Amino acid sequence: MTIQLNETHDAGLRSWVGSANDAQCDFPIQNLPYGVFRSSGSAEAFRIGVAIGDQILDLKAAHAAGIFATLKSPQFDQAIASASLNALMDLGNTTWGILRLLLSRALREGSPQQTSLQAALIAQADAEYALPAQIGDYTDFYTSIHHATAVGKLFRPDNPLLPNYKWVPIGYHGRSSSIGVSGQRFRRPLGQTMPPNAATPVFGPAKRMDYELEIGIFIGNGNAPGDAINIEEAESHVFGLCLLNDWSARDMQAWEYQPLGPFLAKNFASTISPWIVTLEALAPYRHPWQRETTDPQPLAYLESPELRQHGAFDVELEVLLQTKTMREQGLAAQRLSLSNFRHSYWSVSQLVAHHTVNGCNLRAGDLLGSGTQSGPTPEEAGSLLELTAGGKQALTLANGEQRVFIEDGDTIIMRGWTQKPGLPRIGFGEVAGTLLPARSV
Amino acid sequence: MTIQLNETHDAGLRSWVGSANDAQCDFPIQNLPYGVFRSSGSAEAFRIGVAIGDQILDLKAAHAAGIFATLKSPQFDQAIASASLNALMDLGNTTWGILRLLLSRALREGSPQQTSLQAALIAQADAEYALPAQIGDYTDFYTSIHHATAVGKLFRPDNPLLPNYKWVPIGYHGRSSSIGVSGQRFRRPLGQTMPPNAATPVFGPAKRMDYELEIGIFIGNGNAPGDAINIEEAESHVFGLCLLNDWSARDMQAWEYQPLGPFLAKNFASTISPWIVTLEALAPYRHPWQRETTDPQPLAYLESPELRQHGAFDVELEVLLQTKTMREQGLAAQRLSLSNFRHSYWSVSQLVAHHTVNGCNLRAGDLLGSGTQSGPTPEEAGSLLELTAGGKQALTLANGEQRVFIEDGDTIIMRGWTQKPGLPRIGFGEVAGTLLPARSV
Repeated sequence: MTIQLNETHDAGLRSWVGSANDAQCDFPIQNLPYGVFRSSGSAEAFRIGVAIGDQILDLKAAHAAGIFATLKSPQFDQAIASASLNALMDLGNTTWGILRLLLSRALREGSPQQTSLQAALIAQADAEYALPAQIGDYTDFYTSIHHATAVGKLFRPDNPLLPNYKWVPIGYHGRSSSIGVSGQRFRRPLGQTMPPNAATPVFGPAKRMDYELEIGIFIGNGNAPGDAINIEEAESHVFGLCLLNDWSARDMQAWEYQPLGPFLAKNFASTISPWIVTLEALAPYRHPWQRETTDPQPLAYLESPELRQHGAFDVELEVLLQTKTMREQGLAAQRLSLSNFRHSYWSVSQLVAHHTVNGCNLRAGDLLGSGTQSGPTPEEAGSLLELTAGGKQALTLANGEQRVFIEDGDTIIMRGWTQKPGLPRIGFGEVAGTLLPARSV
Repeated sequence: MTIQLNETHDAGLRSWVGSANDAQCDFPIQNLPYGVFRSSGSAEAFRIGVAIGDQILDLKAAHAAGIFATLKSPQFDQAIASASLNALMDLGNTTWGILRLLLSRALREGSPQQTSLQAALIAQADAEYALPAQIGDYTDFYTSIHHATAVGKLFRPDNPLLPNYKWVPIGYHGRSSSIGVSGQRFRRPLGQTMPPNAATPVFGPAKRMDYELEIGIFIGNGNAPGDAINIEEAESHVFGLCLLNDWSARDMQAWEYQPLGPFLAKNFASTISPWIVTLEALAPYRHPWQRETTDPQPLAYLESPELRQHGAFDVELEVLLQTKTMREQGLAAQRLSLSNFRHSYWSVSQLVAHHTVNGCNLRAGDLLGSGTQSGPTPEEAGSLLELTAGGKQALTLANGEQRVFIEDGDTIIMRGWTQKPGLPRIGFGEVAGTLLPARSV
C-alpha cells in the first residue's frame, strides 16, 4: 500500500470547467469522483459520470469523443457504456489509474480536448443519481472504538467494550436491497420493541430513530472463493469511498439484536452519497494509523509496516439536521456534529484483509461500511444515541426545537471533505435522507 | 394461506417418463421442482428445467414445443428462456400455478405432447447445475427452538434461550457471494480464535468445522420498499423450498459473534440443493403449526387463524457423512441424524411477514434460511455441535472412524422428502458439499 503521487495530484492544476477552480468546491480537477446519473426527471438510461466543479462529465460521451482511446478494448468499451460502475470496478486499479490520468489531462486548462468535451458536460443541478453500483453484498463494520465504547455503555453498562474488539475488526452482513442514493425518503419502520419494565413486547412505529455517520467503501475487483486479499494488496482492490448513513431504530435494535446481531432495526433503509471518491484522489490526505501504547499489536494478517505511516484517511465528517419546521421557516440545515475518519480503530486495508482471510469472496460493487465514526470527544459523536446520552438529554436547535431522536419529516445530511495546507479541498458531496411517517396499521 | 388442492396433486397421476412412477423417486409428476442446468462439462448456456423422474425437462425447449402457449407474453417468454429463475419468480404465483398445471398435463401418461417433448428431456445423470437464482440478499433465521436451546447452553450456559426468542423470529443477514450449489468444494477457513484459557487469540485453520441442516426458502415476487407482506399473503410470495447447508466454523464463531452476530464463521461457504420444490407441490403435506400451551401467543402481525391448521411442513431432513476413508473403502455415506421441518418454532409465513413488517423490501430470488432444524430429541440434532455435545463426545462411525467435527475430505450430504399414506413421496434431492484442506499460510 505504498502511496504514490503523480501529476494528477499537482495542487497547481486548474480546469477549463471554471467552477472546479473555486477553493470551496468539492470537486476540483484533483478529485474526479465517479457516479451514475441522468437528466433529472427524464427517462434516459443512467450512465457513468465524473464530477468536475458543478458539472458532470458523461464518460460514454467522452469515450465517443476519443479521450480514452488508449484504453479502448471490448471490456473497457462495455464498462464505460454501462448503467453502473461494476464493470469498471472489475477492471482493476491499473485501468482506474490510466483513466484518471486521461481525465485529468482532458479537463485541464489548455487541453486540446476542451471543445469536443464541452457537449459531454451536464450541470449537476440538472441531474439525478442512481446507486453507483449494483451492490451484491453489503457488510457493515464497527471500526470506531469511541462509538463502540459509548454504545456499549448504553447496551451493556457493565461490559461496554467486549474482549474481542481490539483483536477482531468486528463486522456483520447488512441488507443490500434497501440501500438507496442520496435523496432517499423512507417510512418510519414498524416492529416489535420491549418497553422498559414491560413484561411483553409491543408492536408499533419505532420511537428511537437514529442515523449513523459512516464511510462507505466500494470494492473494485474482488477475489476468488477460497483466496484471501492480503493487507499489502488490500487497497488496490478498493475502488473508492463514499458517505453512508446507516439508519437505525434503536428501540427495535435493543430488543432483537441478541444473539445474532441487528436485523429489522437497520435493514429498512441505508443511504449513500452519489459520488465515489477514489483512493488515488485521497492519496495526499492520508494520515498515520494510530494506536494507544496499551493497545495490542494486531495479528500478523492485519499488520503492515506502512500502516502507521499512512494507514488512515484524514476525512472530516459532518452531520446536519433540517427539520420540517426549519424548512418551513426557510432555515438551513444545522450541524449536529463533526467527526473525522482518521479516528477509526481499524484501517480500510485491515477490513478488506479480515473480510477475505477466511476465503470469503468479495465481488466488484460490494459495499463495506466503516461503522459509525465517532471521534474521541462527546461532540464528535456520529449518532443521536451518543449525542443525547441514550435519549436522556435533548438537543436544543437554533430555532428552539428539541430533538432526542429523529422525528417524521426530518432530513439528515452528511458531508465529508479533506483539506491540507497548500492542497485543494477534496469533497465527497453529501448524502441526504428524509424520514416519512410510519405506514398506518 | 388457504391450502388448495387441484388435479396436479392427484395421487393416481402417472407420467410417460417411466422413472417418475417409481415409488422411491424424489421427483414424481406431483412434484415438478425447478432448477437451472446444462449438459455436464459443456459450455452450453445454463437454462431452466423441471425434474421429472430421473430426467430434466428443458423449459425453453418445452415452450418452443408449444406446451405453455396460454402463458405466452414478452415477460413469460423472456423468463422461461433465462439462465436463472429470477424472472419467473417475479411473475407471481398465478403464473406459477398455470405453469405447473400445464407441465402436469403435458407430462402425464397419454399426453398428446409426449412426442414433441421427448427431445426436451435430458438425463439428470448427464447434467450439471448452477444456482437456481441470482440471490440478491440471503437472510438466515433461527427457527428451531431445540437448536437455539441446545446451542445457547454451549455458548451461554446460564442463559440458553434469550427472552426475545419466543416473540421475535430471530434472523440475521448472511453472505450471498459464497452460496454455491450442491457439489461445492471449499477450503477450511483461516481466522482468529481464542483458545480456552488463552490470553490472546491465535490465527490458523478453524478446528471446529460444522454443518447446519436447514431449509432454504426462495422468495418469488417481492414487495416495494416501505410496504409489508402480511402473514395471510406471505406464502403467495414464496416460490419454493430447497435444502441448505450453512457451514459454520464454531471456534471462530465463539470468538467473533459478540455483539453483532456471526460473520467470518459462516460467510466462506453455504450450499443449496439444485431443485426448488414449490409450495404447491407440498400442499398435501402440510402440518399443524404447534406451540406449547406455556408459549406466548404471537403478536398480531405474526398470527393467522389458519396457522395452527397447516402452518408447518412435514419434511423429513437427513444428514449423512462420507469421509475420505469411506470413499476409499467404497462405503456409502452414513446417516448422522434425521430431523423434520415440522418442529420449527416459526413458520415460513411468519418469517416473510416479520422480515417485511418494517418495510424491508424482498426481491425475487432472495433466499431465507430456516436456521438449523434440530428436533426435540438429541438424535434429531441438525449440527455436529449438538450431536457431540459441543465437541466433547465423539461419534464412532460404522468403519471405526471417529468424528467430533468435520475433517478435511469429508463430504456432508443432506436429503429431504415428505410422504404420507396414499400419497406419493415428494423429494428435495440432495445437497452435498466437501471440505478441502485450508490454504497454506
